[in-house]
Amino acid sequence: MNGVKHMKWWGWGVEGIAFHHEDKPNFAPFVLEKVGLDVNAPSGRPPTFDEIEVPASQLGEQLRGELVGALGEKYVVTEHMDRVVHTFGKSVRDLVRMRRNQLKRIPDVVVYPADEDQVRQVVDAAVAADAVLIPFGGGSNIVGALEPLAGETRQIVSLDLGRLNKVLEIDEESGLARIQAGALGPALEEQLNRRGWTMGHFPDSFTHSTLGGWIATRSSGMQSDKYGDIGDVTRGLRMVQPGAVLVLNPLPATSTGPSVREMILGSEGRLGVITEAWVNVHRLPEERVILAYFFPTWSKGLRAMQAISKSDAQVIVARISDDRETAFSFSTQKKQSGVKKYATEAIFKLLQRRGWDLDKLCMSFIGFEGTKAHVARQKQLVKEIVTEHGGMVVGKGPGALYDQKKFDTPYLRDFLLDRGAAADVSETAAPYSKLETLYDNTIAAAEEAMAEVGCNGYIMCHLSHNYHSGACLYFTFAIADDSEQVLEKYDHVKRAIQQSFIDSHGTLSHHHGVGLEHAPWMAQDISPAGERMIRELFDAVDPKGNLNPGKVVHEGKPGITVISADHETVD
Amino acid sequence: MNGVKHMKWWGWGVEGIAFHHEDKPNFAPFVLEKVGLDVNAPSGRPPTFDEIEVPASQLGEQLRGELVGALGEKYVVTEHMDRVVHTFGKSVRDLVRMRRNQLKRIPDVVVYPADEDQVRQVVDAAVAADAVLIPFGGGSNIVGALEPLAGETRQIVSLDLGRLNKVLEIDEESGLARIQAGALGPALEEQLNRRGWTMGHFPDSFTHSTLGGWIATRSSGMQSDKYGDIGDVTRGLRMVQPGAVLVLNPLPATSTGPSVREMILGSEGRLGVITEAWVNVHRLPEERVILAYFFPTWSKGLRAMQAISKSDAQVIVARISDDRETAFSFSTQKKQSGVKKYATEAIFKLLQRRGWDLDKLCMSFIGFEGTKAHVARQKQLVKEIVTEHGGMVVGKGPGALYDQKKFDTPYLRDFLLDRGAAADVSETAAPYSKLETLYDNTIAAAEEAMAEVGCNGYIMCHLSHNYHSGACLYFTFAIADDSEQVLEKYDHVKRAIQQSFIDSHGTLSHHHGVGLEHAPWMAQDISPAGERMIRELFDAVDPKGNLNPGKVVHEGKPGITVISADHETVD
Repeated sequence: MNGVKHMKWWGWGVEGIAFHHEDKPNFAPFVLEKVGLDVNAPSGRPPTFDEIEVPASQLGEQLRGELVGALGEKYVVTEHMDRVVHTFGKSVRDLVRMRRNQLKRIPDVVVYPADEDQVRQVVDAAVAADAVLIPFGGGSNIVGALEPLAGETRQIVSLDLGRLNKVLEIDEESGLARIQAGALGPALEEQLNRRGWTMGHFPDSFTHSTLGGWIATRSSGMQSDKYGDIGDVTRGLRMVQPGAVLVLNPLPATSTGPSVREMILGSEGRLGVITEAWVNVHRLPEERVILAYFFPTWSKGLRAMQAISKSDAQVIVARISDDRETAFSFSTQKKQSGVKKYATEAIFKLLQRRGWDLDKLCMSFIGFEGTKAHVARQKQLVKEIVTEHGGMVVGKGPGALYDQKKFDTPYLRDFLLDRGAAADVSETAAPYSKLETLYDNTIAAAEEAMAEVGCNGYIMCHLSHNYHSGACLYFTFAIADDSEQVLEKYDHVKRAIQQSFIDSHGTLSHHHGVGLEHAPWMAQDISPAGERMIRELFDAVDPKGNLNPGKVVHEGKPGITVISADHETVD
Repeated sequence: MNGVKHMKWWGWGVEGIAFHHEDKPNFAPFVLEKVGLDVNAPSGRPPTFDEIEVPASQLGEQLRGELVGALGEKYVVTEHMDRVVHTFGKSVRDLVRMRRNQLKRIPDVVVYPADEDQVRQVVDAAVAADAVLIPFGGGSNIVGALEPLAGETRQIVSLDLGRLNKVLEIDEESGLARIQAGALGPALEEQLNRRGWTMGHFPDSFTHSTLGGWIATRSSGMQSDKYGDIGDVTRGLRMVQPGAVLVLNPLPATSTGPSVREMILGSEGRLGVITEAWVNVHRLPEERVILAYFFPTWSKGLRAMQAISKSDAQVIVARISDDRETAFSFSTQKKQSGVKKYATEAIFKLLQRRGWDLDKLCMSFIGFEGTKAHVARQKQLVKEIVTEHGGMVVGKGPGALYDQKKFDTPYLRDFLLDRGAAADVSETAAPYSKLETLYDNTIAAAEEAMAEVGCNGYIMCHLSHNYHSGACLYFTFAIADDSEQVLEKYDHVKRAIQQSFIDSHGTLSHHHGVGLEHAPWMAQDISPAGERMIRELFDAVDPKGNLNPGKVVHEGKPGITVISADHETVD
C-alpha cells in the first residue's frame, strides 16, 4: 500500500461509520409521515466489491513505462479497487450507479506522485500520450467533477494528490501558511493547530476533502463569514500545466490585470494540477461558542440574519433552517430525559403561550469567536437583533450538538439508499431582496417535479454564508423511489431546482462547483459571452482537451444530454 | 458641446485650481533643502493650446458615417481639443510629453455614446473597420492605459463614457446599486447620498475617475479597509464585447468555475467596454472620524498598523507615513498661530522629553465609522494598540485636514513641472513579513538610481490598505531635473522602484493597474504561465487586437522597449 487512504468505495466516509436511527425515536415516524417510507425495513444494501464488474484497464505499455519511470512501480496502480475508488465523487447519482454496477469508463491507472516534480512528469507524460488527466483530492465532489466521460476513448489517468499532504511553512508575521494541495482538512488543521494556528475552513466535507479540491471547486466553510470563502483565503499557489508551472506568489492584493488566481479558483482540473497554495491562517481563538436561537417564522429569521450581517456584529456563522429542516433536525435528536426533556418541553410551552405556531418554528445557529470580551459583546449585539426580529436565544446545548454533528450528515444518504430513497443537496446564492421568492419558487418547483414523477418527496432548506448583499440558500431534498427509474426521477427534480435558482436571480452553485452536472446552465448563469470566455481559456491552456474534459463547460444542453445517469461523450 | 466635462488638457484637475505654496511657509525651504530646487523661481509653464501640433485625424468616411449614423453628428467629434484630451492619462510622463508637444499618434475620433446600445454599435463598427477602440472614463490613469501605441496604423476611436453617468437603481434590501460606468466619483456619490447611501469608494483620483475606470484598473479607495477594493464592491456588470454583451448578474458569491467577473476586473479595455455595474452600497454612517497618531519610528508604526488589522478593531483606514512623508506633510501645513501653534509646539516638546527623535517621527491617520457606540469602542481598541506600540493619539485636527486635502495632491505635479522637477507615484502590496525589507530595498534602489542619473531627488512612502496577510506601500518620488533627458532619468528611477517591488516579494501595482508602463514586468509578477493565460484570453475575445492593444501584456521588454518616453509599436 502507498499510505493514501480513501473513503468507502461504495459510499460516504469511513468504513464502520454509518447513520443509525435506533437512538432517535422521532426519526422513523417523521420519515414515514413525510414520504411514506419505513426506515425499519431496509430494501437494499451496498454491493460487495466482487459483485462489481470492473472494466479492464486500457493503459498502454508506453505510458505505463513513463509513469513508472517517474514515480516508481508502487505509485502507478492499476488495481481494481484503486481504479473504482477514483471513478466517481459522492453525489447520489454516483452512489446509485456504483450500487447498480454501472461502471462504464473508469480510470485506467491511478498515480500517486510524491511532489510537484513528479506531478509535472505525470502531466507531461499524459499530455504527450494524448491521455486524459483527472486530479483527485478527497473524492467528495457531488457535481460530477471527477468522473471520466462515458465515451472517452483515450487512456485515463487519475492523479491522486494524497501524498502531498504537508503544511510546508508558516509565515507567522503575515499569517500565511504554505500547504500542499493533497492535505485533507483534518490533516492540515492538525498540523496548523499544533503550532497555534487555524485555517478556519470547515466545509461539510471537511473530513474527506483537500485544500486543492477546495480551491479547484471554490469551496466555502461553515465559518467563512469570518474567515472568507476559499477564494479569499487563497493568496498564492502553484499549478502544474502542460509544459509549465504557474507560480502566483502570496499577495494580500494586486491590480495586475485580470486575476489569474481567480481563473485557477474553480477550474476543476481543466487548467492543470494545483500542487500547493499559500493560505491565510489565524491564531486559534481564545473562545468559541455556537448558540442556538428560535424564530417564529422563516421570513422573520431571514430578516434577522440579514440584519446581523449588516450590523456591527462580527459573527463566524449565522445560519437558519426553514420550518421543514427544523422539523427534520428535531426528528434526529436523541431521546431526551430528565432535566433536558423538561427544559425542552418548557420552552415549547412558553412559545405556544406567546402565540408561536410550533409547526412554523425555525432554528438558527450563530457562532462567535475571539477574546472573551469580544465574544460577549457580539453575543449581546446579536441578542438585541434577534429579539427585535421576534426571535429568542435558546442557548449552548443545540449549538454544541450542531458542532459535533456537522460532518455526519452525508452518511444519511447511504442509509436512505438502503431504504429506497435518493437524497442530495443543491445550493445557491442570491441578493437578499431575491431570497424569499427564490425559496418559495424552488420549494414549489421541487414539489411540482416530485409530483410529475409520481414520487413522495421532501425538500428543506437553510440559509448560511451571509455577505453584504445576499446569502447562500442550501436545499436538501429526497425522493422515495425504489424503481429502476430513480435516477431519472431524481434528475427531473434536480433540474427543476437548478432552473428555479437561475430563474429566481440566484446562481447555479454557491460552493459545490459546476462539474458535469451544472455545466448545462453555465450560459444562463454567466451569459453566453461569459461561458465562451471560460471555454476559450480552457482551450488555450489545454488545446487537445487532456485536462479533465467536459467539466465546467461542455456541449450538453440543459437537462437533456448530460444531466442524466448516462453522460454522453463531449467532443 | 455635448455636456461631458474633462480635466485640463495639459494637467491635473479643474481649470483655475492649482497647488500654491505662498501660505505654506515651510514648503519652499523644505524643497530647497531636499532637492536644491527654488520653488519661488518657476522655470517653465504649461503650453497654450495653439502651441500644440495636433496630428490630422485619420478617420475614414465609412467609419465616420457609421458612427454618425449610430450616435448623431454631435457625438462623433474630431476637434483638436477633444482628440488631445483623450490621448493620455495623467502620469508625469503624460504631462511632460504634452508640455513638450510630443503628440505622436492620437485618437482620430472621440465618440460619446448615450447608452449601451450605442456602445454596442460603436464597438461593432470599430471592429468591423479594423479600428482600435480605447474606452475613456475620467482620464486619470497614470500607467499608460489610455494612450494609443505610437506606431498604430489603424484608425483610433476613443470611446468616452461620460454620458453614461447615472445611478440607475438601488436595491435597498440588498444594499446594491446599478450604476453606469461613466459616472464620476462625485456624481455617483451625490446621487447615492441623496437617498441615504454611499458606495464608500474614494481613491485619490475620486474627483476625476469613473466607476468603469475603477473596475477596469482594479482600483482601491481610501476607505477600502471597510468597504473593500473595487473587486469586492463590484457584484455584477455588463460589458460590450465584439458581437456580444456579457452579462453578470449581481451575486454575493458563486462557485461557477473560473471567475469571469475577475477577468473583467483589471482588463483595462482589452476585453470590451464596461457599461454598468451592480455595486455594494451602504447606509451613510451615523458618525465618521479620522484621528491622527504619532509614532517614534516607521518600524513601530508599521507593527501597530498590522496589529490593528489583526485585532478585533474595525477601522475604515489605517495609514502611516514614513519619516520622509511626515516631514513633507509638515512642510505643506499652513502657517499656524495662536492656540494651534502653541499646541503643536507643546506636543513636540513633550515628545522630545520622552526621548523621541523628531526626525524619525511618523504620522498616522486612522478612521472610524458607524454608530457612536461602535466608533467609541473602536477608537478605544485602537488607542490601546497604538499605546502598546509606543505611539500616541494626536487628535482630530490633522485628521480633518487630511480629509480636506486628500484629493489635492495630484495638483502638485504640475506645480513641480513648472519648476523643473518630475514627480509621480508607485505602489505595491506584499505580505507583512516582507514590508520592511521591501521598503528599505526600494528607498535604496530609488536613491541609487537617482545618483546614477545625477539628479537630486526625494522619495517618501506611506502604508495604506491593510489586509489579513499584508498591506500596500505607496511611494511618491521626485527628481529635480530641467534637462531634455528628464523622462529618461525619471524612467530609470521608476524602473528601479518597480524592479525592487518584484525582487522584494511585492506586486507590480496594488491599485494603479498595468497599462503600458508596468506590462514589461507581468511575467515576473504572475510567472510566464500566468502572463500567457491573460494573453490568450485577450486573443480569444479580440483576435485582431482592436481593443486597447498593448495594455496589460505586450511584447516590450522590461525597461527597454516600452518603458520609455517613446513607446514602440507592439505587434
